[in-house]
Amino acid sequence: MLNRYDRNKKKILNDPVYGFISITDDLIFDLIEHKYLQRLRRIKQLGLTHLVYPGALHTRFHHVIGTMHLMQKTIDILKSKGHAISADETKGALIAILLHDIGHGPYSHTLEKSIVCEPDHEVLSLIFMRKLQESFGDPLALAIEIFSNKYKKKFLHKLVSSQLDMDRLDYLKRDSFYTGVSEGVINTDRIITMLDIANDGPVIEAKGIYSIEKFIIARRLMYWQVYLHKTVLAAEQMLIQIIARAKYLIANGETLFATDPFKLFLAKNVIREDFNSSPQYLEAFAEIDDYDVFTSIKVWVKHKDKVLSTLCNNLVNRHLFRTHIQKIPFQPAYIEEVKSEVMKLYDIDFADTRYFVFTDVAKNSAYDPLNDKINIIFKDGRVEDITRASDQLNVEVLSKTVTKFYLCHPKQIEAVNNSVL
Amino acid sequence: MLNRYDRNKKKILNDPVYGFISITDDLIFDLIEHKYLQRLRRIKQLGLTHLVYPGALHTRFHHVIGTMHLMQKTIDILKSKGHAISADETKGALIAILLHDIGHGPYSHTLEKSIVCEPDHEVLSLIFMRKLQESFGDPLALAIEIFSNKYKKKFLHKLVSSQLDMDRLDYLKRDSFYTGVSEGVINTDRIITMLDIANDGPVIEAKGIYSIEKFIIARRLMYWQVYLHKTVLAAEQMLIQIIARAKYLIANGETLFATDPFKLFLAKNVIREDFNSSPQYLEAFAEIDDYDVFTSIKVWVKHKDKVLSTLCNNLVNRHLFRTHIQKIPFQPAYIEEVKSEVMKLYDIDFADTRYFVFTDVAKNSAYDPLNDKINIIFKDGRVEDITRASDQLNVEVLSKTVTKFYLCHPKQIEAVNNSVL
Amino acid sequence: MLNRYDRNKKKILNDPVYGFISITDDLIFDLIEHKYLQRLRRIKQLGLTHLVYPGALHTRFHHVIGTMHLMQKTIDILKSKGHAISADETKGALIAILLHDIGHGPYSHTLEKSIVCEPDHEVLSLIFMRKLQESFGDPLALAIEIFSNKYKKKFLHKLVSSQLDMDRLDYLKRDSFYTGVSEGVINTDRIITMLDIANDGPVIEAKGIYSIEKFIIARRLMYWQVYLHKTVLAAEQMLIQIIARAKYLIANGETLFATDPFKLFLAKNVIREDFNSSPQYLEAFAEIDDYDVFTSIKVWVKHKDKVLSTLCNNLVNRHLFRTHIQKIPFQPAYIEEVKSEVMKLYDIDFADTRYFVFTDVAKNSAYDPLNDKINIIFKDGRVEDITRASDQLNVEVLSKTVTKFYLCHPKQIEAVNNSVL
Amino acid sequence: MLNRYDRNKKKILNDPVYGFISITDDLIFDLIEHKYLQRLRRIKQLGLTHLVYPGALHTRFHHVIGTMHLMQKTIDILKSKGHAISADETKGALIAILLHDIGHGPYSHTLEKSIVCEPDHEVLSLIFMRKLQESFGDPLALAIEIFSNKYKKKFLHKLVSSQLDMDRLDYLKRDSFYTGVSEGVINTDRIITMLDIANDGPVIEAKGIYSIEKFIIARRLMYWQVYLHKTVLAAEQMLIQIIARAKYLIANGETLFATDPFKLFLAKNVIREDFNSSPQYLEAFAEIDDYDVFTSIKVWVKHKDKVLSTLCNNLVNRHLFRTHIQKIPFQPAYIEEVKSEVMKLYDIDFADTRYFVFTDVAKNSAYDPLNDKINIIFKDGRVEDITRASDQLNVEVLSKTVTKFYLCHPKQIEAVNNSVL
Repeated sequence: MLNRYDRNKKKILNDPVYGFISITDDLIFDLIEHKYLQRLRRIKQLGLTHLVYPGALHTRFHHVIGTMHLMQKTIDILKSKGHAISADETKGALIAILLHDIGHGPYSHTLEKSIVCEPDHEVLSLIFMRKLQESFGDPLALAIEIFSNKYKKKFLHKLVSSQLDMDRLDYLKRDSFYTGVSEGVINTDRIITMLDIANDGPVIEAKGIYSIEKFIIARRLMYWQVYLHKTVLAAEQMLIQIIARAKYLIANGETLFATDPFKLFLAKNVIREDFNSSPQYLEAFAEIDDYDVFTSIKVWVKHKDKVLSTLCNNLVNRHLFRTHIQKIPFQPAYIEEVKSEVMKLYDIDFADTRYFVFTDVAKNSAYDPLNDKINIIFKDGRVEDITRASDQLNVEVLSKTVTKFYLCHPKQIEAVNNSVL
Repeated sequence: MLNRYDRNKKKILNDPVYGFISITDDLIFDLIEHKYLQRLRRIKQLGLTHLVYPGALHTRFHHVIGTMHLMQKTIDILKSKGHAISADETKGALIAILLHDIGHGPYSHTLEKSIVCEPDHEVLSLIFMRKLQESFGDPLALAIEIFSNKYKKKFLHKLVSSQLDMDRLDYLKRDSFYTGVSEGVINTDRIITMLDIANDGPVIEAKGIYSIEKFIIARRLMYWQVYLHKTVLAAEQMLIQIIARAKYLIANGETLFATDPFKLFLAKNVIREDFNSSPQYLEAFAEIDDYDVFTSIKVWVKHKDKVLSTLCNNLVNRHLFRTHIQKIPFQPAYIEEVKSEVMKLYDIDFADTRYFVFTDVAKNSAYDPLNDKINIIFKDGRVEDITRASDQLNVEVLSKTVTKFYLCHPKQIEAVNNSVL
Repeated sequence: MLNRYDRNKKKILNDPVYGFISITDDLIFDLIEHKYLQRLRRIKQLGLTHLVYPGALHTRFHHVIGTMHLMQKTIDILKSKGHAISADETKGALIAILLHDIGHGPYSHTLEKSIVCEPDHEVLSLIFMRKLQESFGDPLALAIEIFSNKYKKKFLHKLVSSQLDMDRLDYLKRDSFYTGVSEGVINTDRIITMLDIANDGPVIEAKGIYSIEKFIIARRLMYWQVYLHKTVLAAEQMLIQIIARAKYLIANGETLFATDPFKLFLAKNVIREDFNSSPQYLEAFAEIDDYDVFTSIKVWVKHKDKVLSTLCNNLVNRHLFRTHIQKIPFQPAYIEEVKSEVMKLYDIDFADTRYFVFTDVAKNSAYDPLNDKINIIFKDGRVEDITRASDQLNVEVLSKTVTKFYLCHPKQIEAVNNSVL
Repeated sequence: MLNRYDRNKKKILNDPVYGFISITDDLIFDLIEHKYLQRLRRIKQLGLTHLVYPGALHTRFHHVIGTMHLMQKTIDILKSKGHAISADETKGALIAILLHDIGHGPYSHTLEKSIVCEPDHEVLSLIFMRKLQESFGDPLALAIEIFSNKYKKKFLHKLVSSQLDMDRLDYLKRDSFYTGVSEGVINTDRIITMLDIANDGPVIEAKGIYSIEKFIIARRLMYWQVYLHKTVLAAEQMLIQIIARAKYLIANGETLFATDPFKLFLAKNVIREDFNSSPQYLEAFAEIDDYDVFTSIKVWVKHKDKVLSTLCNNLVNRHLFRTHIQKIPFQPAYIEEVKSEVMKLYDIDFADTRYFVFTDVAKNSAYDPLNDKINIIFKDGRVEDITRASDQLNVEVLSKTVTKFYLCHPKQIEAVNNSVL
């Protein structure tokens, strides 16, 4: 028989970000032990960002544990302010946030459209949750209701998913901690202490207004300095191109080293129907992680296909492409010119240069009031959107979507980039 | 004879903010040991802010040591980027920043117009520097040139005083550290690493643009959350009224407990000419600090003048006035009404209610491009003002002066404040 | 009427050490607002230590608020482990720790025997508590029982006062934070998480054994590196000598500048009976703080008594005496020789050299098992003293009292110190 | 042509532990870019420790960059204290520390004897360095001399390898940071500031003595709390057993999924001579990392060999064995009994139970003065070993090797463990 000390021991986790995280519920403990969730230990939160910020090796596992911790603290605060939240609702909300990212695959967002063509990770999370419901029963049902915004108390869903949810609070703090980009650090303690509920949604007490402004600015800073960092974009695009080429080769009858479940997704463009029609896809998806993908890439360095081996070699040994960013689209003629240079450089077909020269667009708006709002509550009970409540952040500025166009190509090519930022 | 270890020991200071601060120059060490500078150990950086943020007890002394430390790091960085800065210029800049606040008196900004009516602390700093030059000679002369912006290399002055100077870098970091308002924390390391020089002024490399945005936002947050906090404003106004009443009583022949040098300033409205005409004023000013003022206030709690004793009792025992803030001026009729209530509350003359009911205006603009600019340098050598360079911070928004009107009165008065924020 | 937000606002304190501290009880809030406790805002936790570690300006006020915060967390943890602690007991323990230092006077320990000759601060705390009981009633009665170890549940007293009490946990963490001596930082979170109760006393779960070892070592490090730092010792002794000389002069009919309540203690060697026989002593003691003492010292710089003015000048302008430390007592003949030098230096009577040359002994044992023990509880329920439970810390080593003798004298004297460490 | 800004950009690394790390030398930059060093990005510093401390995902890459940073700071300090260290020696020392761990293979120490049977990683580091010397020339030659302790200035070697080297300073700080075990945090800044040279070896100034004591205690704490944590030991032993079983199966003609270079080491017990006789072994070794090993383990979960698949399944899904620790060896009869239980549990041969029941011994002494010493220098020039110089740390206690015996077995087995700690 395990005594109290034994059981306690298993239920406290060290987290460099928050100190200690206690797991106080047995069912939640069992969920964390489940292989679906343990698998998130092998999926890095920020994909290939560690090639630029070497500390950024933290995983989806650590992130979801962190979000659960913040949810617990938030619910404690809200209850202390007089809001009734039952034990079942608490457990439901904790499970919903714990599982909100369980549908992520290898390299998280980077390969979100490459490995499973659709649906996105949120739908996959829901599919996983339904599967877990078979074993874990009612608490999962309530968690699914909250996650899908079907539960009557809408504010619980908003704590899981909105512009000021536990997800964002944790990822901003965690990502800035592990990248070492200290400007992104936010004061989750203060923000949570200021949380309240009005009109069935979370609101922030007026004296927390500056913390919210800082949160919005910090998020924007993390976007441009980390998530959309030029070299991170280059590495991610290279990874996407590698998977595209591997799929192309397999479609054309080539043999490629890969684990069996990974092969399944390389050989077929899996879509939502496949998950419905055949359980093997979910099980295979639950078996792949960063390890399957990167080990294959390491082996493919020696593959006879020059396109694949070149891309893989460049990624493995960190010869990352150069990225140019500008505010207007790159001219097609200019792109053609760069591709011609690459054709010569590698002695490959022009058609294959698309794996080495790619252009895309990065967008981010710091705050999107059309979607949902961050509301401030004043002492007299008035509730106002942050952009109205703030003296300085105005809605036009913050909700403006910043759009940047980028072009990646091998470093050896000396681009003529007089229009570059 | 002191050996190496002995001398080293004296020249490293522990700073909770930066770790260690080394003092590597003998003349600078002697300046720090001088009584003019040691006196700053007894002047709190943030006046009475500790009544709201109990950790905010740090002094002007610690601040100026911190600015000197940042100046040393900045000069090292600039030299490593190829800019010629001589040993004399380095020492001059270090001394200029070390002494930039030496003209501050008791409670720093709060009593800046109360103890010495004019000039302000910067002019007094200059007067002190000239006095020190008599003992310390040439290095002080160069420091004064830099401080007064008369030295040929203008960028050195801007490191001492501009919108991105060592003063601001240190005070934002230090004040947020000691108040515990973590949102104000800025990454001085990163900002300094990104510093360069163009057009004889400091510029920031383009990749540091987000750090600068964060710096501007953090500064603004500290203004409204700390420097202009309602209760801090109330406490500071109470202190100002106390000194005003004390001066009034002395002018009317009353006797008040005070140290001799403090009495000098209570008994006469000292102005710039006095410092010129008689050396006693500088020496007396150099002898007073927070201790003289607050000890008197503690004694005045028992003074027979009801206005003085009430104010002092309220401040000493932290019965701070209530502050109301709004975006438009308070109506004179409304203020009269509040004063009438106070007249009844304390049974005093109406004229004396001005010590208990005061209204003023607090203004702050996050960034003032009319004054001087924070410039960004791009890879192609272009230099642009931050508000042009930033995608999101636009000049109209940031340079807008936010104006708030506030009214303070005793808590016992129940103000009808339907117009209050 | 105050609404919820207003009341919340007053009841959260920013603490750079712990983040936020919530005050959830109205009576405790009122106690904190009481002038006896507000007075601790003007008594520095570490006396003159800031002359060596310039950040060490934190006050007894911040410390007692911190201990209360840790007590709340400890009680929450103990209750979560199944121990019954009633709401009244919780409040009693919180009040006991909040008031445990209320008997401290100006410069805390430094002047503990100089201003009030006896009793020590703990007895004075009890006198203050009894006075407060007159206004606050029953909760104070229970707090006094706990403080005096008369309450039946002995473990509550041990949380207030023992080798692992809230006092030590807070002061080690806070003092290391503000001095910047990061080696003294302890993980209060972890230690509190590991706390349990056995045999009516606090015990630490076995897996926390290394944290306790670290706590003991950190405490020892803080003793020798901060509390008994050579220059700190010199400054403190100078302060003690100043008060001694001031008392001597007053006893001999001299007039000295001082506030009235401070004069009371300078003019008479106040002892325990005085507090019993006349309420004026407690009220006067409650009115003096660091400000009264240091302001007088600043004025005394110009006093005609050469001994007093020299000591005061040296302290105010930080010409601190030199301290020599050795493991054996200093030879009387050697001390005489140093005194002779001082007699010549200042041209004073030999008898008066005792104010400038003083020797004393500093002792510290890292852990004193004779007093009370730090106990470890193992999974099988065994309870063992830390020195038995630890593989490496053995009782002989840790409980050995380290004794160091020190001698202070003016820096101008070049001591022949061949026996010095 | 790259301009200054471009080049700077590549040469500053964010490190959550130290802030920024600058790489100021081109050859060192090229070494870091080399695939041998880039490979360390895929080798976790602490093997499987992240299964217990989920933040511990940091790599050998980040560690060696950190050691280089500390070496640079150390050399700057030593030069500022008047010691002559030439530019070549500086570069040699930086390279030596940068490459000191380049010989590590997958999962660092855990598989040190499993993948390459011998030599250990330090010899392999030397083999790698000699290989790099072929491309990088003389600076590598000097680095090798320092690394091998053949360079005349012995203190440089001691900064690379001794009881107070850059390796230990970095790994203690980094490991405690990423595990979140804050008690292990050491003040590298302070220790380095106190470094000096005497008798051609590093010494610490006497006033740093407490920091060194803390360093020794912190190291010991990290050993027992992290490096030798029961569950970490279990996971590591499981990994070792998996490789042993895989090798056994291949030796017996089974086919196993693995990358080619990994297969090479599974199929043959590679020893030192192999590296000398055939270059393929070094190249293959340079190609394997954590990814090769763990991807294979994930595939082997479905292998038909029950021993292998069970072990792999347990590790992948974190069903880690239970570890018992005691101060005396486990009785052979008792181990047999446990093995019999396991035989029944899995229905396997008794001989194969050795993969599931293993016992070993963990040893650690906090400080080993027989090897080399940590020396303290006093103001009078005396140099003493820390255990003599310290009042409290005595040599018997610290140099005592603590020996603990541990036994791991599947959790399902309910061991009768009355002798267990």
